[in-house]
Order: sequence, then C-alpha cells, then structure tokens
Amino acid sequence: MTRMDLVEQIVAAKLERKLTWRQLAEAVGRSEVWTTSALLGQQCMSADEAAAAGNLLGLSQEEVRLLQVPPSKGSLGATPPTDPLIYRFHEIVQVYGTTLKELIHEKMGDGIMSAIDFEMSVDKVPDAKGDRVRVVMNGKFLPYRKW
Amino acid sequence: MTRMDLVEQIVAAKLERKLTWRQLAEAVGRSEVWTTSALLGQQCMSADEAAAAGNLLGLSQEEVRLLQVPPSKGSLGATPPTDPLIYRFHEIVQVYGTTLKELIHEKMGDGIMSAIDFEMSVDKVPDAKGDRVRVVMNGKFLPYRKW
Amino acid sequence: MTRMDLVEQIVAAKLERKLTWRQLAEAVGRSEVWTTSALLGQQCMSADEAAAAGNLLGLSQEEVRLLQVPPSKGSLGATPPTDPLIYRFHEIVQVYGTTLKELIHEKMGDGIMSAIDFEMSVDKVPDAKGDRVRVVMNGKFLPYRKW
Amino acid sequence: MTRMDLVEQIVAAKLERKLTWRQLAEAVGRSEVWTTSALLGQQCMSADEAAAAGNLLGLSQEEVRLLQVPPSKGSLGATPPTDPLIYRFHEIVQVYGTTLKELIHEKMGDGIMSAIDFEMSVDKVPDAKGDRVRVVMNGKFLPYRKW
Amino acid sequence: MTRMDLVEQIVAAKLERKLTWRQLAEAVGRSEVWTTSALLGQQCMSADEAAAAGNLLGLSQEEVRLLQVPPSKGSLGATPPTDPLIYRFHEIVQVYGTTLKELIHEKMGDGIMSAIDFEMSVDKVPDAKGDRVRVVMNGKFLPYRKW
Amino acid sequence: MTRMDLVEQIVAAKLERKLTWRQLAEAVGRSEVWTTSALLGQQCMSADEAAAAGNLLGLSQEEVRLLQVPPSKGSLGATPPTDPLIYRFHEIVQVYGTTLKELIHEKMGDGIMSAIDFEMSVDKVPDAKGDRVRVVMNGKFLPYRKW
Amino acid sequence: MTRMDLVEQIVAAKLERKLTWRQLAEAVGRSEVWTTSALLGQQCMSADEAAAAGNLLGLSQEEVRLLQVPPSKGSLGATPPTDPLIYRFHEIVQVYGTTLKELIHEKMGDGIMSAIDFEMSVDKVPDAKGDRVRVVMNGKFLPYRKW
Amino acid sequence: MTRMDLVEQIVAAKLERKLTWRQLAEAVGRSEVWTTSALLGQQCMSADEAAAAGNLLGLSQEEVRLLQVPPSKGSLGATPPTDPLIYRFHEIVQVYGTTLKELIHEKMGDGIMSAIDFEMSVDKVPDAKGDRVRVVMNGKFLPYRKW
Amino acid sequence: MTRMDLVEQIVAAKLERKLTWRQLAEAVGRSEVWTTSALLGQQCMSADEAAAAGNLLGLSQEEVRLLQVPPSKGSLGATPPTDPLIYRFHEIVQVYGTTLKELIHEKMGDGIMSAIDFEMSVDKVPDAKGDRVRVVMNGKFLPYRKW
Amino acid sequence: MTRMDLVEQIVAAKLERKLTWRQLAEAVGRSEVWTTSALLGQQCMSADEAAAAGNLLGLSQEEVRLLQVPPSKGSLGATPPTDPLIYRFHEIVQVYGTTLKELIHEKMGDGIMSAIDFEMSVDKVPDAKGDRVRVVMNGKFLPYRKW
Repeated sequence: MTRMDLVEQIVAAKLERKLTWRQLAEAVGRSEVWTTSALLGQQCMSADEAAAAGNLLGLSQEEVRLLQVPPSKGSLGATPPTDPLIYRFHEIVQVYGTTLKELIHEKMGDGIMSAIDFEMSVDKVPDAKGDRVRVVMNGKFLPYRKW
Repeated sequence: MTRMDLVEQIVAAKLERKLTWRQLAEAVGRSEVWTTSALLGQQCMSADEAAAAGNLLGLSQEEVRLLQVPPSKGSLGATPPTDPLIYRFHEIVQVYGTTLKELIHEKMGDGIMSAIDFEMSVDKVPDAKGDRVRVVMNGKFLPYRKW
Repeated sequence: MTRMDLVEQIVAAKLERKLTWRQLAEAVGRSEVWTTSALLGQQCMSADEAAAAGNLLGLSQEEVRLLQVPPSKGSLGATPPTDPLIYRFHEIVQVYGTTLKELIHEKMGDGIMSAIDFEMSVDKVPDAKGDRVRVVMNGKFLPYRKW
Repeated sequence: MTRMDLVEQIVAAKLERKLTWRQLAEAVGRSEVWTTSALLGQQCMSADEAAAAGNLLGLSQEEVRLLQVPPSKGSLGATPPTDPLIYRFHEIVQVYGTTLKELIHEKMGDGIMSAIDFEMSVDKVPDAKGDRVRVVMNGKFLPYRKW
Repeated sequence: MTRMDLVEQIVAAKLERKLTWRQLAEAVGRSEVWTTSALLGQQCMSADEAAAAGNLLGLSQEEVRLLQVPPSKGSLGATPPTDPLIYRFHEIVQVYGTTLKELIHEKMGDGIMSAIDFEMSVDKVPDAKGDRVRVVMNGKFLPYRKW
Repeated sequence: MTRMDLVEQIVAAKLERKLTWRQLAEAVGRSEVWTTSALLGQQCMSADEAAAAGNLLGLSQEEVRLLQVPPSKGSLGATPPTDPLIYRFHEIVQVYGTTLKELIHEKMGDGIMSAIDFEMSVDKVPDAKGDRVRVVMNGKFLPYRKW
Repeated sequence: MTRMDLVEQIVAAKLERKLTWRQLAEAVGRSEVWTTSALLGQQCMSADEAAAAGNLLGLSQEEVRLLQVPPSKGSLGATPPTDPLIYRFHEIVQVYGTTLKELIHEKMGDGIMSAIDFEMSVDKVPDAKGDRVRVVMNGKFLPYRKW
Repeated sequence: MTRMDLVEQIVAAKLERKLTWRQLAEAVGRSEVWTTSALLGQQCMSADEAAAAGNLLGLSQEEVRLLQVPPSKGSLGATPPTDPLIYRFHEIVQVYGTTLKELIHEKMGDGIMSAIDFEMSVDKVPDAKGDRVRVVMNGKFLPYRKW
Repeated sequence: MTRMDLVEQIVAAKLERKLTWRQLAEAVGRSEVWTTSALLGQQCMSADEAAAAGNLLGLSQEEVRLLQVPPSKGSLGATPPTDPLIYRFHEIVQVYGTTLKELIHEKMGDGIMSAIDFEMSVDKVPDAKGDRVRVVMNGKFLPYRKW
Repeated sequence: MTRMDLVEQIVAAKLERKLTWRQLAEAVGRSEVWTTSALLGQQCMSADEAAAAGNLLGLSQEEVRLLQVPPSKGSLGATPPTDPLIYRFHEIVQVYGTTLKELIHEKMGDGIMSAIDFEMSVDKVPDAKGDRVRVVMNGKFLPYRKW
C-alpha cells in the first residue's frame, strides 16, 4: 500500500461516512488546514492523532501506522496545476512573486518566509456583494546566514 | 521601450534615489502590495497614480504613459521559480494545494477564490522566538455557473 | 474508484445504451455543454441531476454520489493537446490570444473574462459551401481590484 | 527588422497617437478582431489594407511592405500563458476540450472546426449584475477524408 | 476497454493470424495508409468497414463498435519521438518546416495544407543503388479567411 | 555574423528585391525545395551555387563564404511548432507516425527512410473543389545492420 | 504482452538461469552488443536467432515470435537519463557534440554518420592505473543529397 | 566577452584564415578532438597551448587568457539536439544506452566509464561500399565505492 | 518483480518489523548512507550483504538475488523534486553550483569531484539554538584528461 | 545594469587582476564559499563587505551599491545543469535524495535541513591515491510545525 493508495481510501471513506474535514480536525485535535493536509498525505501524524482519524474513517492498523511515517510531499500531479481553484494560487505566485520578494526584503532584510515553521488558515468571509475567501499564511522569517 | 525595460529602470531609480516601496505607495495613495506590483509591471495605474509615482522616480512622459497600459502579467522567469523566497510560495501551493481545494469546497461549494477581485497584504509580526511574516489573501468566492 | 474510472464507465455505458449527450442533457435539465462536461468529470452535479443521469446510464449508488463531488478539473492528457479537434482551439488561443487581450482591455478596461461565471454553447450552422461550427462563450467581466 | 520589432513599433505608435483598434479596423475596412490580429503579427494584409494602417500609424514603406508577408504565427511567449486574461482561454480548452470534441462529433461526425476558415468576434454585453464578455467563434466544419 | 487496449489487441491478433495491413485494407475496401491508421486508433470506421476488419481479426461485438467511435488522436508517446524511423519524419519537419512554409505561401498565398482533408500513400521504389521509400501527401489548400 | 543573421538578411533582401524562391532556385541550378532550405540555413552550398545566390541577393564576400559552411540544422524555434502551416506537418507525424512505421516495415523490413539521402518536392494541384498541395518525399531505405 | 513485458521477462529469466549476455550472443551467432540490444527490445531478430535465444531463456512460442517484430525503439525512460553510467554517454554528446560535427565535416564534407548502418563494440582494456572501457562506433557516412 | 563570444570569434577567424582543425591541433600539440573541443569552449588550455592557437587565429591577449579558464561546459543549445549529425549520437544513447549499461556491468562490475579521464578519436574509414566514420571512446572504469 | 517493487516491499517490511536504517547498516556491515541507498535501489550489494539485509527484512531468495544486480539509478520521480527536504538540496545546487565550480577549480584545477568514488555521511549536531544537520561529501578529484 | 552584468564584470576583473576567491574572501572578512557566492550574485553584502570587494576589483559606486541589494537567486542556466562538475552534485541529489530523506527523518523526525540558516565549506584533501574534494554542509534542522 503506497501513500497515494491510502489518500484515495481516506477520501472514499470520508465520502461514504459523510464526514467533514472539520469533524476530522476536531477528532484529531488540530486545525482544519493541518489535519486535511495530513490526511491528504502531506504531513506526519502522532500515534494519537492517527488513531483518532483512523477511528472515524475506519482505517486498519497498517493504515494508521502509515499515517505516522513522514510522507514524500507534493500534492499536485502537474506543473502548473490544471485545476482552476489551485491554479489561481499558482497565478498569485506568478503575478505577485516579485512583489512578495521586494516587500519582505524591505521590511525584514535578506531572508525568506519559512514554509516549514508555517501555519495557514482558510476562512469564509460573508459579504453582501458576494462572499469572500480569506487565506492567512504565517511563517517564521529566516535570515540568510553569513559565515 | 518594453514593459520589462521600464521595470528595470524603476528598480534602478528607486535604488539610486533611496526610495522605499512604502514611500512610493503613500505617494500613489494605494497599498504597498498593489503599488509594488504595479511598478513591477503587473498592474495598470490611473493617470494620477502614474504621475505621482513618475514624479518620485523621475520618469519621462512616455514612461508615465506606459504605466497606464494593461501589462502582460506574469513576473517569474522560470517555472518553478529558482529564487528561494519565491520558491517557498510555490512549495506552499505544491504541499497545500489539494488542502485549499478541499476546504474551500467544504465551506463554500464548487467554485474558486478569485485572483482578480483580490487583495493581499504582507506584514512583519515581531516574535520573541524569531520574527514572522504574515501574508493575508482575500479574494471573492466565485461559484461555478450552471446553465 | 477514481473520477477517471467513472468517466470511462460513463462513456462506455453511453456507447452501449446508444444514448446521445443531448438525451442526457434533457434528462438532467441542463444545457448540452454543461451536462457533457459534468459527465466527463469537469463539473459537480446536484443530487437530482446526478440521479437523472445515473438512471439513464445505469450507474450505481456510489457512482451517483461521486458525481456530486467537486472534481479535480482539467481534461487534457498533454499540453499542447495532440488531438486535432482540440488542438485547433489551442491554436486559436496561440494565434488570437494577444488580440483577445487587446480588445477586451479596449472595450472594458483592465480585467479578465471569467471562466467560472461562464457559459458556452456549440452549434451546427448549415451552410451551402460546407456546414460550420459556431461556439459562443459568455463570461462575466471581472475588473482588477485596486486597494 | 523582424516581425516582432514591427509589432512593438505598432503598439508604441498606437499608444502615442492615441488610436484605438476600432479606428484602425475602420480604416483598414476589416473587423476589429482580424485587424488587431494582423497588426499584432498574426495575419497577412493586402497592399491597400497595409497602406491604410500604415497611414494612421505613421509606418515606413518597408514596414508597410512587411505587413503583406505571411507571418510566422503564434503570439504567446510561454505555454501555458502566464497572463491571467489569456490563461482563462487556455483553461477553457483544458476544462471543456473533451466536451467540445464530444459535441462536435455528435452533431457533425468525425472532423474538426477549422481555425483557418474561421471568424471570431469579441463584444461587451451590458448586464446589471456585472457586464459580460461574449466571444463568438465560427469555423468551417472539415470532415476527415477517407481514401 | 480503452482505445489503446483495442489497438494492442489488434496488433496481437494480426501477428497471431499472420495478417498483413494490405490484406486488412483490401477487406475494408480502403487504402493501406487509411486502414492501418484506423486500426491503430487514429480514424473512425463505418459499420461495414469495422465489421470487415473485425471479421479477419476475430474481434468481439464491443470491439467492432468501438472502431466506429471518433478516437482521441495522436499516436506518439513522446515528443520528439524516440523511434528512429518516426524521428526521421520529425527531423524533416525540423529541417524543412520553414521551407515548406515559404514555398506554399509563394505558390498559393497565405493559408495551410489541411491535415484533415488529406491523403497519404507510402510506396517502395526499387532502385539499383538501394531501394527507396516514397511518401506522397496530398491535402486541400485552405486560405486564411479575412472578415 | 551568425547563420541566423545571414538568414534574416537573405529574407529581407529577397523581399526588397522582389525575388521569388523559384528565381533563386533557377539561378542556383537546384530544385526549389533544396535552394530554399539552403538559403534558410539548412543546407551547405558549393562555391558556384553560393555565388549565384549571392549575386541575385546582393550578398557580401563573407556572406557568400558562410553559405558554404555546413550549418547547424533545425529551423523551428519551438517544439511543437506554433505556426499553423508548420504544425499541420507535425500533426501528420503525430497522427500517422505509427502507420508509417508499420507500412515501411511491412513493405521493406526493419529499417528507416533516410532524411539525408532524401529529396522532396512541393506542388500546387489545381482542383475544382479547391486547390490542393502535394508534397512528395523520397528517401533511401536504410536497413538496420546486424553484426 | 507488450515488448516491455517481454524485456522484463528476459532480464528475469537471464538472472534466474545465471546466463551472461556473452552466452546468449554466442547462441544467437551475433555480437554481444547487437544481441543484447535485440533482447532489450531495440532490434528485430530472424526466426533462427529468436529461436536460439528463446531456447536458452525458456521463452514461449508467442514470445519467440514477438522477438521477430520490429520494435518501437528508444530504451531510456527519461531525457536526460538519470542513471550515472548512461548519463556519462549523454554528457559526452553534450560536451563533444559540436566537436564531432566539426571534425566529421572537415574530414568528409556535409553529411552524417548513420546510426542505422552502424556497428558498436564495448571492451574492457586492462590498465595498471585502472582498467578502462573502450567503445568503438562505426557507421556509414551519408552525404546530404542535393537535387 | 563571454566564452560563447570567443567561440564565435574563433569559428569566424578559422573560416576567414582558411585554417583546419587539424592545423590548429598540430600547432597546439594535442589531438584533433581535444583541440577542437577546447577551441569550441569545452576544455581549458595551458598558457603555451592557448598562445599557439591564438597565434594562428590572431586572437588578442585577453582572448588567449580566456582560453586558460575552465569553461562552463555543455555545447548543445537544445535537448534533444536538432542538428541531424549530433542527433544521431543522441539516438545511439537512446537505442543502445541500456545495452552499454548491461555489458559494462557484465564485463567490469557496478561502476561507470568516466567522461573526464576520457579520450576520443574520430576517423574516416575508406570503404568501397561507402566510406565510414569510426569513433573510438576510451574512458577509465570507475567502480562504485562502498563504505 | 521490478526494482521499484522490491524497494516498496523493503520499506513496508522495515515499517512492519520496526527496524531502523542503522540496524540494517550494522547487520550489513556498511555505513548508514550506503546501506540505505542500496536498500532504496541505488547500489549493488554483495551476496553476503544482501543475505544479511534479507534476513532482517524477511526477503525471499529471488529478492536477495535482485539486490545483487546493478540497478538503474536515480531515485527522484520529478525534476526538480517536489518534496521540501529533497528540494533544499536541489536549491543548494541551484544557489551554490557556480560557487562550487569556481572554488574546486581554484583549489585543484580543471576537473570534477567524482560522484562514484564518493562517500557521504549524515549526522545530527546538537545545538542549543536548534539542532543542526551535517552532511559531509567526500569524492575523488578527477582532473580532465588531455590527449 | 542587471545583476548578471555585474557578475560578468566581476569575473572579468578578477581574471584581469589575477585575484583569487581566497584573496577576495580575506578582504571581505567572510569564508571563501560565502564570498564567492555573494560575488557570483547569490548573496547580499553589507556596505563594508561590498566596499572591500569593490576596492580589490575596481568596481564603481553604483556596482558597490548593487552588491548590497538582495539578488534574485539561482545560478544555473539549465535544469539539469550541463556542466559536468555541477552535474555531479545534481546526480548526488538524484541518487541519494531519498536516502537523505530517510536518514534525516530517522535521526531527527519530520522536518528539513535549512538551506538558508546554512553554511558550507569546500576543501582539498591530499591523498596518495589521488586527491579528494571534501564538501561539508551544515544547516539548521527545522521541524514541521503542527497547529
């Protein structure tokens, strides 16, 4: 059983049992974003977290164990992504990539925003002219080391 | 003069005149992110906005006029980007792309977050364990039309 | 069962049962283009729409349920597409892409035509010198937000 | 002088002389789409058409002559295109490509819609909920020859 | 059963039954090139043609029916092709592509040679210094439409 | 001066002097296809051939000498080619590549059609239903050597 | 059974029966290089050659027959190859490609070394400072045809 | 002046002064292959070697000095190469790559043939049935280190 | 059974039997890096080494034999790698590649660091400000041969 | 003046003034690796560091100022790199990438080695059997954040 097989099975079980990502996140005791990405094969769970998720999803012992192994990350099949929702985020990097670079350097010096010591949230913002999506990214600034 | 020539000249003038993106944004009367991306060739300015920026940067009439033309957008020379700062945002799309898709669908149905009716901010968040970068994206949710 | 498995099965069932896309669209109560793209794995059906399609095609419960999940969109195996019919549309974007950009900007300002709040029709136009194909695309104009 | 040099010069002259594509199309005596694509280096003009365009744009004899040579077509620098407006059309081919194939085959048999014996128009459709863009493509159906 | 499965089965049946493409073409009542390309999944047969081929090859009802569906065309696994015989044709396009463009334009004006309203033959030409291959392509000239 | 510079200059001189490829071929004493491909930088001329072409085109000594050097061949800027006329030939290889392979093997055994010991012609074939283009390729069959 | 399935089976049988490529070449009556490349799916054997190889390897009738069909050639999964041994040959073409071109042209005129009417050998050359590998390639010179 | 500028200048000077690679190799005191590849920007000359080559080619002091700097190697503009002569060597790696791997492993164990501690020669072999090209590669065998 | 099947099975067996790479390395009598890379399909084991590893992992005779065959090396599915840990090493080559080249040339002349006669170690370095990873690479310097 | 222009000029000045990277590193007061990468356009210098380097290399005020701007990083023109020295490091990532991943996870948990909070050294290790190159990488371990 590969990690991708496990992800397919989790997605199928979630659909069959009519579970939401929010319910799974609450059971696991982590945020929605982290829990969803872990169950989609992008993070490594602790034994307890894996057991809680496995319980709701009806996973086997072997599957629960596999959720605790650091996965080979990278969730997209093609670059650039073909799915319109995911492509919009790719487009934001295309259009605003050099802007992000200039502003982070201006505010904080030469370095990067970590994608490892990193958190993200996704929320719905009701709006009379049409609801909006709000994505907040929060990553540690890592200055380039000189030696 | 192509748009890329204009961008190179703006970056050189900003460096020579020791201007910050913040100062340019204040003169233009827009946010830092929008102003920076406009001056890096990714947005289209109004006549007043272009004049204000041109004034600080010492641009010619022709250059101020060019800032008012919708540009051919896309700021990255290579896919995936080689610069580590920009790459981290590409990596976030790689690792969290399917997560963003699942959660936006769960919260709002089938549709996308617009990258056009869209705002973004970049801020420094002081933190004793190391300062952090906070990026907030806010885009209109567009449901897929059925017909 | 993945979405692609489902699409393969739908295409096979349609062939075996000698159904047309038009018949399926009428049963579903949507246009030909939308219904065809939904059954080819590019749109998300309501419970009623999925049930109507499933009825004609002889789909199982699980398959009807899968039709109601937002799919990972993007129907082409290769870029550029190798099939001559599909390639011609790719060629139209290659040859007329910058023209579309110039004219939409001239008529409506800086922004895009949405591919989400979007409709399309495909029709046969009888013509003595050889029948013609008429494709009409209709998408909401989204102006770039300034902030 | 290459064709791309000529296109850059035409775009600059149009900007400087505050001409619209519509004015150029009227002078040339062709539709907006065809005239714009010809001046962007994708079509071949007759001597009269080139002279009319050259007159408004202030082109030299050599430049007017170059407009009458069949160009090497294909207007996009990268595949897929990075500009959001042009990308949306690429996305339409990605998402609806197999749908177009199925419906044209169902309505007309095995063959293609010509991109050569082909016309296109782009129009603004006023709408209270937000103006819309309407693109109409009309191409000859070419059945596959059997021999 | 996908089209590629069918092609594999046809190739295997032809080998086992020691049939030639010529024999299949004669049974089908079409040229060698057309028949071969149809059986390799690149053309759409009529009911009679498919029945004749199916008879010689021992195909099932479902397989005969599948031969009558317009296929997703494009027979090469990689671009450029790795097989030396096929690569030579790719090389001819590489080396003589601009020559073909110049000469067709000189002789016939701006337009293309259709690959749809198109015939091809392949023949062996005995020659004392070494036999030769003769490939004749014959396609309708399609002038670019102006509008 | 690179070979591409020379080609650009030849194309410009041909346009200015209103020469046709046919006239150049007659002066050089070779076929249209060969002469055109040589002047487009894909073949190597003898001293006499280069002098005759240089005479009509008004080339310098250095340029005439450069025509006698074996060029780095391959005339297309992108793979697959974006120009519709050249793309159709690419498409023919895509759609008929495996057919060519099967038929050449059936008629002549394991080997290839040479693209070096090779001739080609391009002709206009008048036809009441629309003129046609006829391309004849003739290459030596090279059987695979066994050892 | 595809050709790649056959190659996998041959490699497994050779390992299980502890055969060497040399033993197989002797049985077949051809050189090591040719025999190995034929059994790896890159050449087409005669009936006798295939029978001899099949005998040693324990192949079925169908498998022996498949060895006599001209294969779709090209043995590498990725370009450039990732395996270090094979990559070194790719690197030789990268570093010495233009050198080979210049020297073959200087010695023999405009033309190529055939990869079809071609032989190769691979030998171990004992050397006190470390053994060496000697690869000899021998291909017919094919001058470009003029017409 | 970049290395590529220097190579272009060397090729032009060689052409103007009617020098052969053989003459340059004799002056430098190295083999034809090595000298040609060094002058084409792929090797690093000693002071004496560079002076001897510079003398024949009429190079400046700066250019002679540049010949002594280790270059950034890799002589091909595109992968796979489009020039037919160079492509044939690429094809040999494609068709015989796995064969070379199997035979070197069988004869010498797990390791590679070095492309650094490496020599090559190119020779013309007269033959009544058509002259042949003989390329001999000789590289040190490097066994994989275990630790 | 292909090499990749074997690797998957080894990884699964290691997980099930709760083995570490260190334990496997000790049993095999080689370093952690070498043993891990061998079991991940990138090195060739001796009979004893393979038997020791097979014993711990519960491999069959055939699997132990397969570990002794030189593998087709290259462990990454995509270039550049999508996994963040592996990508950082790719980034180091991107950012420091020309630096490595300049310094090795300055210290040792024109040549390379061998990746074959090569050792590597990976260690954890405890550090109060956050533990660090230390990777030491040690490869033979191979000077370019002149001839 | 772009960053690449500055790098070219630094390399030329270093060659003309017969400076070594070691001398430049001593003047700047940083390690060889860091100083070389900064002067090759991959790091951002302080005012003092830039002045010291500019002094030795004879750079202008503007050039010294440019050395203090965070550069767009990524030093390789092609992926994978064609230069053999740099390619060997790419190959190490290809062959040992999954090994590095497994061992870092085993020793330290799920996380990465930072390429930002990172040091590297390159040294010559004299050895009777042939000198060796020793590269030491030392980067902070960053555990994946859970939230």
